[in-house]
Amino acid sequence: MDGAPSPHDRRDNPVEREKIGPWTRISGREVYDNPWIRVREDQVLHPDGSPGIYGTIHFKNIAIGVVALDDQGRVILVGQHRYPFDRYFWEIPEGGCPIGLETPEAAAVRELREETGYTAARWDYLGTLELSNSTTDEIAHMYLARDLSPGPAQPDASEEIAVKAMDFREAYRMSMEGGITESITVAAIARAKHFLDREAAP
Amino acid sequence: MDGAPSPHDRRDNPVEREKIGPWTRISGREVYDNPWIRVREDQVLHPDGSPGIYGTIHFKNIAIGVVALDDQGRVILVGQHRYPFDRYFWEIPEGGCPIGLETPEAAAVRELREETGYTAARWDYLGTLELSNSTTDEIAHMYLARDLSPGPAQPDASEEIAVKAMDFREAYRMSMEGGITESITVAAIARAKHFLDREAAP
Repeated sequence: MDGAPSPHDRRDNPVEREKIGPWTRISGREVYDNPWIRVREDQVLHPDGSPGIYGTIHFKNIAIGVVALDDQGRVILVGQHRYPFDRYFWEIPEGGCPIGLETPEAAAVRELREETGYTAARWDYLGTLELSNSTTDEIAHMYLARDLSPGPAQPDASEEIAVKAMDFREAYRMSMEGGITESITVAAIARAKHFLDREAAP
Repeated sequence: MDGAPSPHDRRDNPVEREKIGPWTRISGREVYDNPWIRVREDQVLHPDGSPGIYGTIHFKNIAIGVVALDDQGRVILVGQHRYPFDRYFWEIPEGGCPIGLETPEAAAVRELREETGYTAARWDYLGTLELSNSTTDEIAHMYLARDLSPGPAQPDASEEIAVKAMDFREAYRMSMEGGITESITVAAIARAKHFLDREAAP
Protein backbone atom coordinates (compact mmCIF):
# COMPACT_ATOMS: atom_id res chain seq x y z
CA MET A 1 0.00 0.00 0.00
CA ASP A 2 3.07 2.24 0.21
CA GLY A 3 2.50 5.43 -1.72
CA ALA A 4 -0.97 4.43 -2.83
CA PRO A 5 -3.52 7.08 -1.92
CA SER A 6 -6.34 5.92 0.31
CA PRO A 7 -9.76 6.12 -1.28
CA HIS A 8 -10.51 9.21 0.81
CA ASP A 9 -7.48 11.04 -0.55
CA ARG A 10 -8.56 10.56 -4.13
CA ARG A 11 -10.73 13.42 -5.29
CA ASP A 12 -11.85 11.47 -8.30
CA ASN A 13 -12.63 8.24 -6.47
CA PRO A 14 -15.86 6.97 -8.01
CA VAL A 15 -16.82 5.35 -4.68
CA GLU A 16 -17.12 8.79 -3.12
CA ARG A 17 -19.26 10.11 -5.91
CA GLU A 18 -22.88 9.59 -6.68
CA LYS A 19 -24.61 9.98 -10.00
CA ILE A 20 -27.87 11.97 -9.84
CA GLY A 21 -29.06 11.51 -13.40
CA PRO A 22 -26.73 13.65 -15.54
CA TRP A 23 -25.35 15.33 -12.39
CA THR A 24 -22.51 14.10 -10.22
CA ARG A 25 -22.58 14.72 -6.47
CA ILE A 26 -18.98 15.00 -5.28
CA SER A 27 -19.69 15.77 -1.64
CA GLY A 28 -22.36 17.34 0.53
CA ARG A 29 -23.00 18.85 3.92
CA GLU A 30 -26.07 19.65 5.96
CA VAL A 31 -26.32 23.41 6.49
CA TYR A 32 -29.61 23.66 8.44
CA ASP A 33 -32.11 21.40 10.15
CA ASN A 34 -35.35 22.01 12.03
CA PRO A 35 -38.42 19.84 12.73
CA TRP A 36 -39.86 20.60 9.27
CA ILE A 37 -36.99 21.01 6.79
CA ARG A 38 -33.36 20.02 6.26
CA VAL A 39 -31.14 22.10 3.97
CA ARG A 40 -28.00 20.72 2.35
CA GLU A 41 -25.40 22.03 -0.01
CA ASP A 42 -23.73 19.63 -2.43
CA GLN A 43 -20.60 20.10 -4.46
CA VAL A 44 -21.60 18.89 -7.92
CA LEU A 45 -20.61 18.52 -11.50
CA HIS A 46 -23.25 19.97 -13.81
CA PRO A 47 -24.60 17.85 -16.68
CA ASP A 48 -21.92 19.48 -18.92
CA GLY A 49 -19.17 18.48 -16.45
CA SER A 50 -18.48 21.94 -15.04
CA PRO A 51 -18.23 22.24 -11.23
CA GLY A 52 -20.74 24.03 -9.03
CA ILE A 53 -22.97 23.77 -5.99
CA TYR A 54 -26.57 22.63 -5.50
CA GLY A 55 -28.55 23.67 -2.43
CA THR A 56 -31.61 21.50 -1.77
CA ILE A 57 -34.36 21.48 0.82
CA HIS A 58 -35.73 18.22 2.16
CA PHE A 59 -39.26 18.43 3.57
CA LYS A 60 -40.03 16.15 6.52
CA ASN A 61 -43.77 16.40 5.87
CA ILE A 62 -45.87 15.53 2.84
CA ALA A 63 -48.27 18.39 2.07
CA ILE A 64 -51.95 17.43 2.16
CA GLY A 65 -54.81 19.31 0.50
CA VAL A 66 -58.54 18.53 0.76
CA VAL A 67 -61.29 19.75 -1.59
CA ALA A 68 -64.29 19.34 0.74
CA LEU A 69 -67.67 19.76 -0.98
CA ASP A 70 -70.89 20.22 0.98
CA ASP A 71 -74.33 19.07 -0.19
CA GLN A 72 -75.05 22.53 -1.64
CA GLY A 73 -72.15 22.32 -4.10
CA ARG A 74 -69.91 24.58 -2.04
CA VAL A 75 -66.21 24.04 -1.31
CA ILE A 76 -64.89 24.70 2.20
CA LEU A 77 -62.08 27.28 2.19
CA VAL A 78 -59.84 28.35 5.05
CA GLY A 79 -58.29 31.78 5.45
CA GLN A 80 -55.01 32.33 7.23
CA HIS A 81 -52.04 34.63 7.35
CA ARG A 82 -49.00 32.91 5.81
CA TYR A 83 -45.79 33.89 7.57
CA PRO A 84 -43.31 33.64 4.62
CA PHE A 85 -45.43 36.08 2.58
CA ASP A 86 -46.77 38.21 5.46
CA ARG A 87 -50.21 38.20 3.89
CA TYR A 88 -53.56 36.51 4.01
CA PHE A 89 -54.54 33.56 1.78
CA TRP A 90 -57.77 31.70 1.09
CA GLU A 91 -56.97 28.04 0.45
CA ILE A 92 -58.42 24.59 0.72
CA PRO A 93 -57.67 22.92 4.08
CA GLU A 94 -54.01 21.89 4.02
CA GLY A 95 -51.48 20.50 6.40
CA GLY A 96 -48.45 18.34 6.87
CA CYS A 97 -48.24 14.56 7.02
CA PRO A 98 -45.10 13.47 8.90
CA ILE A 99 -43.40 11.02 6.52
CA GLY A 100 -43.52 7.48 7.89
CA LEU A 101 -45.49 8.45 10.99
CA GLU A 102 -48.97 8.95 9.54
CA THR A 103 -50.60 7.86 6.30
CA PRO A 104 -51.54 10.65 3.90
CA GLU A 105 -55.16 9.48 4.08
CA ALA A 106 -55.20 9.77 7.89
CA ALA A 107 -53.54 13.18 7.67
CA ALA A 108 -56.22 14.35 5.23
CA VAL A 109 -59.00 13.27 7.60
CA ARG A 110 -57.21 14.90 10.54
CA GLU A 111 -56.41 18.19 8.80
CA LEU A 112 -59.96 18.64 7.51
CA ARG A 113 -61.35 18.04 11.01
CA GLU A 114 -58.77 20.18 12.82
CA GLU A 115 -59.05 23.18 10.51
CA THR A 116 -62.76 23.13 9.70
CA GLY A 117 -64.47 20.71 12.10
CA TYR A 118 -65.85 18.70 9.17
CA THR A 119 -65.66 14.95 8.80
CA ALA A 120 -66.41 13.32 5.44
CA ALA A 121 -68.00 9.95 4.68
CA ARG A 122 -66.76 9.83 1.06
CA TRP A 123 -63.16 10.27 -0.02
CA ASP A 124 -61.54 10.19 -3.47
CA TYR A 125 -57.87 10.64 -4.32
CA LEU A 126 -56.90 13.51 -6.62
CA GLY A 127 -53.25 12.54 -7.08
CA THR A 128 -49.94 14.10 -6.30
CA LEU A 129 -47.90 17.21 -7.08
CA GLU A 130 -44.24 18.13 -6.77
CA LEU A 131 -44.35 21.71 -5.57
CA SER A 132 -40.90 23.15 -6.40
CA ASN A 133 -38.84 20.39 -7.96
CA SER A 134 -35.74 22.39 -8.89
CA THR A 135 -34.97 23.10 -5.22
CA THR A 136 -37.09 20.99 -2.86
CA ASP A 137 -38.36 17.41 -2.62
CA GLU A 138 -41.74 18.54 -1.29
CA ILE A 139 -44.75 16.64 -2.60
CA ALA A 140 -48.47 17.07 -2.01
CA HIS A 141 -51.31 14.55 -1.97
CA MET A 142 -54.77 15.87 -2.74
CA TYR A 143 -58.21 14.52 -1.90
CA LEU A 144 -61.86 15.12 -2.67
CA ALA A 145 -64.05 14.82 0.45
CA ARG A 146 -67.86 14.63 0.29
CA ASP A 147 -70.85 13.71 2.51
CA LEU A 148 -69.66 16.20 5.13
CA SER A 149 -70.76 16.35 8.77
CA PRO A 150 -69.95 19.48 10.83
CA GLY A 151 -68.16 19.45 14.17
CA PRO A 152 -65.88 21.63 16.29
CA ALA A 153 -62.62 22.85 14.70
CA GLN A 154 -59.36 22.25 16.60
CA PRO A 155 -56.64 24.48 15.14
CA ASP A 156 -53.14 24.03 16.55
CA ALA A 157 -50.96 26.74 18.12
CA SER A 158 -49.58 27.85 14.76
CA GLU A 159 -52.99 28.34 13.16
CA GLU A 160 -55.52 31.18 13.37
CA ILE A 161 -58.01 30.12 10.79
CA ALA A 162 -61.23 31.45 9.27
CA VAL A 163 -63.59 29.09 7.45
CA LYS A 164 -66.06 29.84 4.69
CA ALA A 165 -68.02 27.93 2.07
CA MET A 166 -67.88 29.14 -1.55
CA ASP A 167 -69.82 27.93 -4.56
CA PHE A 168 -67.50 25.40 -6.19
CA ARG A 169 -67.95 26.84 -9.67
CA GLU A 170 -66.92 30.26 -8.38
CA ALA A 171 -63.86 28.80 -6.60
CA TYR A 172 -62.94 27.02 -9.86
CA ARG A 173 -63.33 30.23 -11.85
CA MET A 174 -61.17 32.11 -9.34
CA SER A 175 -58.51 29.38 -9.37
CA MET A 176 -58.37 29.50 -13.17
CA GLU A 177 -58.52 33.31 -13.51
CA GLY A 178 -56.20 34.34 -10.71
CA GLY A 179 -58.34 35.17 -7.66
CA ILE A 180 -57.04 32.01 -5.96
CA THR A 181 -53.33 31.43 -6.43
CA GLU A 182 -51.98 28.98 -3.81
CA SER A 183 -50.58 26.10 -5.85
CA ILE A 184 -52.14 23.11 -4.08
CA THR A 185 -55.54 24.83 -4.06
CA VAL A 186 -55.37 25.69 -7.78
CA ALA A 187 -54.29 22.19 -8.81
CA ALA A 188 -56.67 20.36 -6.46
CA ILE A 189 -59.69 22.42 -7.53
CA ALA A 190 -58.83 21.89 -11.22
CA ARG A 191 -58.49 18.15 -10.66
CA ALA A 192 -61.69 18.02 -8.60
CA LYS A 193 -63.57 19.78 -11.41
CA HIS A 194 -62.22 17.25 -13.91
CA PHE A 195 -63.06 14.35 -11.57
CA LEU A 196 -66.63 15.58 -11.03
CA ASP A 197 -67.16 16.20 -14.77
CA ARG A 198 -66.03 12.66 -15.57
CA GLU A 199 -68.21 11.23 -12.81
CA ALA A 200 -71.24 13.11 -14.17
CA ALA A 201 -70.58 12.15 -17.80
CA PRO A 202 -73.07 9.67 -19.25
CA MET B 1 -30.31 56.02 33.07
CA ASP B 2 -28.84 54.21 36.05
CA GLY B 3 -30.40 50.82 36.46
CA ALA B 4 -32.70 51.27 33.51
CA PRO B 5 -32.28 48.46 30.99
CA SER B 6 -31.24 49.54 27.53
CA PRO B 7 -33.75 48.70 24.80
CA HIS B 8 -31.50 45.87 23.67
CA ASP B 9 -31.55 44.26 27.10
CA ARG B 10 -35.32 44.12 27.19
CA ARG B 11 -36.59 40.89 25.74
CA ASP B 12 -40.09 42.28 25.51
CA ASN B 13 -39.11 45.55 23.83
CA PRO B 14 -41.78 46.16 21.18
CA VAL B 15 -39.25 48.07 19.02
CA GLU B 16 -37.32 44.85 18.50
CA ARG B 17 -40.41 42.90 17.55
CA GLU B 18 -42.31 42.71 14.31
CA LYS B 19 -45.89 41.62 13.81
CA ILE B 20 -46.35 39.15 10.95
CA GLY B 21 -50.15 38.95 10.91
CA PRO B 22 -51.08 37.00 14.06
CA TRP B 23 -47.41 35.99 14.54
CA THR B 24 -44.72 37.94 16.35
CA ARG B 25 -41.13 37.79 15.13
CA ILE B 26 -38.86 38.27 18.15
CA SER B 27 -35.53 37.86 16.37
CA GLY B 28 -34.07 36.15 13.35
CA ARG B 29 -30.83 34.99 11.83
CA GLU B 30 -29.70 33.94 8.37
CA VAL B 31 -28.62 30.29 8.43
CA TYR B 32 -27.77 29.71 4.74
CA ASP B 33 -27.34 31.70 1.56
CA ASN B 34 -26.45 30.77 -2.01
CA PRO B 35 -27.10 32.44 -5.39
CA TRP B 36 -30.66 31.02 -5.51
CA ILE B 37 -32.02 30.81 -1.95
CA ARG B 38 -31.57 32.35 1.49
CA VAL B 39 -32.68 30.41 4.58
CA ARG B 40 -33.48 32.11 7.89
CA GLU B 41 -34.68 30.97 11.26
CA ASP B 42 -36.84 33.30 13.33
CA GLN B 43 -37.70 33.13 16.99
CA VAL B 44 -41.46 33.71 17.02
CA LEU B 45 -44.57 33.79 19.09
CA HIS B 46 -47.30 31.64 17.56
CA PRO B 47 -50.76 33.13 16.98
CA ASP B 48 -51.76 31.73 20.41
CA GLY B 49 -48.78 33.48 22.06
CA SER B 50 -46.65 30.38 22.66
CA PRO B 51 -42.95 30.60 21.70
CA GLY B 52 -41.37 28.69 18.83
CA ILE B 53 -39.23 28.94 15.72
CA TYR B 54 -40.08 29.50 12.04
CA GLY B 55 -37.63 28.53 9.30
CA THR B 56 -38.31 30.19 5.96
CA ILE B 57 -36.73 30.07 2.52
CA HIS B 58 -36.47 33.17 0.38
CA PHE B 59 -36.18 32.52 -3.35
CA LYS B 60 -34.06 34.98 -5.35
CA ASN B 61 -35.77 34.02 -8.59
CA ILE B 62 -39.38 34.12 -9.68
CA ALA B 63 -40.35 30.83 -11.31
CA ILE B 64 -41.54 31.12 -14.91
CA GLY B 65 -43.65 28.57 -16.81
CA VAL B 66 -44.67 28.71 -20.48
CA VAL B 67 -47.50 26.74 -22.14
CA ALA B 68 -46.32 26.92 -25.74
CA LEU B 69 -48.87 25.69 -28.30
CA ASP B 70 -47.95 24.93 -31.89
CA ASP B 71 -50.30 25.30 -34.87
CA GLN B 72 -51.25 21.62 -34.64
CA GLY B 73 -52.71 22.03 -31.14
CA ARG B 74 -49.71 20.46 -29.44
CA VAL B 75 -47.99 21.72 -26.30
CA ILE B 76 -44.19 21.76 -26.12
CA LEU B 77 -42.89 19.74 -23.16
CA VAL B 78 -39.35 19.45 -21.87
CA GLY B 79 -37.91 16.41 -20.12
CA GLN B 80 -35.15 16.66 -17.58
CA HIS B 81 -33.72 14.96 -14.53
CA ARG B 82 -34.54 16.96 -11.39
CA TYR B 83 -31.74 16.79 -8.85
CA PRO B 84 -33.77 17.10 -5.60
CA PHE B 85 -35.92 14.10 -6.60
CA ASP B 86 -33.26 12.15 -8.53
CA ARG B 87 -35.79 11.34 -11.21
CA TYR B 88 -36.99 12.44 -14.61
CA PHE B 89 -39.87 14.87 -15.18
CA TRP B 90 -41.82 16.04 -18.21
CA GLU B 91 -42.82 19.67 -17.72
CA ILE B 92 -43.62 22.83 -19.60
CA PRO B 93 -40.53 25.00 -20.21
CA GLU B 94 -39.66 26.63 -16.89
CA GLY B 95 -36.90 28.72 -15.47
CA GLY B 96 -35.93 31.43 -13.04
CA CYS B 97 -36.38 35.18 -13.38
CA PRO B 98 -33.85 37.04 -11.19
CA ILE B 99 -35.98 39.42 -9.13
CA GLY B 100 -35.35 43.04 -10.14
CA LEU B 101 -32.88 42.14 -12.88
CA GLU B 102 -35.22 40.86 -15.61
CA THR B 103 -38.93 41.22 -16.20
CA PRO B 104 -40.99 38.02 -15.94
CA GLU B 105 -42.13 38.56 -19.54
CA ALA B 106 -38.53 38.75 -20.79
CA ALA B 107 -37.62 35.68 -18.73
CA ALA B 108 -40.51 33.75 -20.29
CA VAL B 109 -39.34 34.62 -23.82
CA ARG B 110 -35.75 33.71 -22.89
CA GLU B 111 -36.56 30.41 -21.15
CA LEU B 112 -38.77 29.21 -24.00
CA ARG B 113 -36.04 29.99 -26.53
CA GLU B 114 -33.18 28.57 -24.44
CA GLU B 115 -34.89 25.30 -23.56
CA THR B 116 -36.80 24.59 -26.78
CA GLY B 117 -35.50 26.96 -29.47
CA TYR B 118 -39.01 28.33 -30.06
CA THR B 119 -39.96 31.96 -30.24
CA ALA B 120 -43.61 33.01 -30.04
CA ALA B 121 -45.40 35.93 -31.69
CA ARG B 122 -48.43 35.80 -29.36
CA TRP B 123 -48.27 35.88 -25.57
CA ASP B 124 -51.01 35.79 -22.93
CA TYR B 125 -50.60 35.90 -19.17
CA LEU B 126 -51.96 32.98 -17.14
CA GLY B 127 -51.44 34.51 -13.71
CA THR B 128 -49.43 33.66 -10.66
CA LEU B 129 -49.00 30.87 -8.10
CA GLU B 130 -47.43 30.68 -4.65
CA LEU B 131 -45.71 27.29 -4.72
CA SER B 132 -45.20 26.39 -1.03
CA ASN B 133 -46.50 29.26 1.07
CA SER B 134 -46.08 27.72 4.52
CA THR B 135 -42.28 27.62 4.15
CA THR B 136 -41.09 29.61 1.11
CA ASP B 137 -41.89 32.91 -0.62
CA GLU B 138 -41.48 31.38 -4.07
CA ILE B 139 -43.94 32.54 -6.71
CA ALA B 140 -44.45 31.55 -10.32
CA HIS B 141 -45.73 33.53 -13.30
CA MET B 142 -47.27 31.54 -16.13
CA TYR B 143 -47.77 32.35 -19.79
CA LEU B 144 -49.50 31.03 -22.89
CA ALA B 145 -47.31 31.32 -26.00
CA ARG B 146 -48.64 30.85 -29.55
CA ASP B 147 -47.64 31.49 -33.16
CA LEU B 148 -44.39 29.59 -32.63
CA SER B 149 -41.28 29.70 -34.80
CA PRO B 150 -38.59 27.05 -34.33
CA GLY B 151 -34.92 27.81 -33.75
CA PRO B 152 -31.85 26.34 -32.04
CA ALA B 153 -32.12 25.53 -28.32
CA GLN B 154 -29.45 26.92 -25.97
CA PRO B 155 -29.61 25.03 -22.66
CA ASP B 156 -27.28 26.27 -19.90
CA ALA B 157 -24.69 24.20 -18.03
CA SER B 158 -27.22 22.92 -15.51
CA GLU B 159 -29.65 21.65 -18.13
CA GLU B 160 -29.74 18.47 -20.19
CA ILE B 161 -33.11 18.76 -21.82
CA ALA B 162 -35.28 16.71 -24.16
CA VAL B 163 -38.12 18.36 -26.07
CA LYS B 164 -41.32 16.85 -27.40
CA ALA B 165 -44.71 18.05 -28.61
CA MET B 166 -47.83 16.42 -27.13
CA ASP B 167 -51.46 16.88 -28.11
CA PHE B 168 -52.71 19.57 -25.72
CA ARG B 169 -55.87 17.65 -24.83
CA GLU B 170 -53.73 14.64 -23.85
CA ALA B 171 -51.41 16.83 -21.76
CA TYR B 172 -54.48 18.32 -20.06
CA ARG B 173 -55.89 14.87 -19.34
CA MET B 174 -52.54 13.73 -17.92
CA SER B 175 -52.24 16.85 -15.76
CA MET B 176 -55.72 16.29 -14.36
CA GLU B 177 -55.43 12.51 -13.91
CA GLY B 178 -51.92 12.26 -12.53
CA GLY B 179 -49.60 11.44 -15.43
CA ILE B 180 -48.15 14.96 -15.18
CA THR B 181 -47.55 16.13 -11.61
CA GLU B 182 -45.13 19.07 -11.51
CA SER B 183 -47.10 21.88 -9.90
CA ILE B 184 -46.46 24.76 -12.32
CA THR B 185 -47.17 22.50 -15.30
CA VAL B 186 -50.44 21.21 -13.81
CA ALA B 187 -51.70 24.69 -12.89
CA ALA B 188 -50.54 26.34 -16.13
CA ILE B 189 -52.11 23.68 -18.34
CA ALA B 190 -55.39 23.88 -16.40
CA ARG B 191 -55.41 27.68 -16.73
CA ALA B 192 -54.48 27.48 -20.42
CA LYS B 193 -57.38 25.08 -21.03
CA HIS B 194 -59.77 27.48 -19.26
CA PHE B 195 -58.32 30.45 -21.18
CA LEU B 196 -58.70 28.69 -24.55
CA ASP B 197 -62.24 27.51 -23.74
CA ARG B 198 -63.27 31.08 -22.87
CA GLU B 199 -61.60 32.43 -25.99
CA ALA B 200 -63.48 29.90 -28.14
CA ALA B 201 -66.84 30.49 -26.45
CA PRO B 202 -69.41 32.29 -28.60
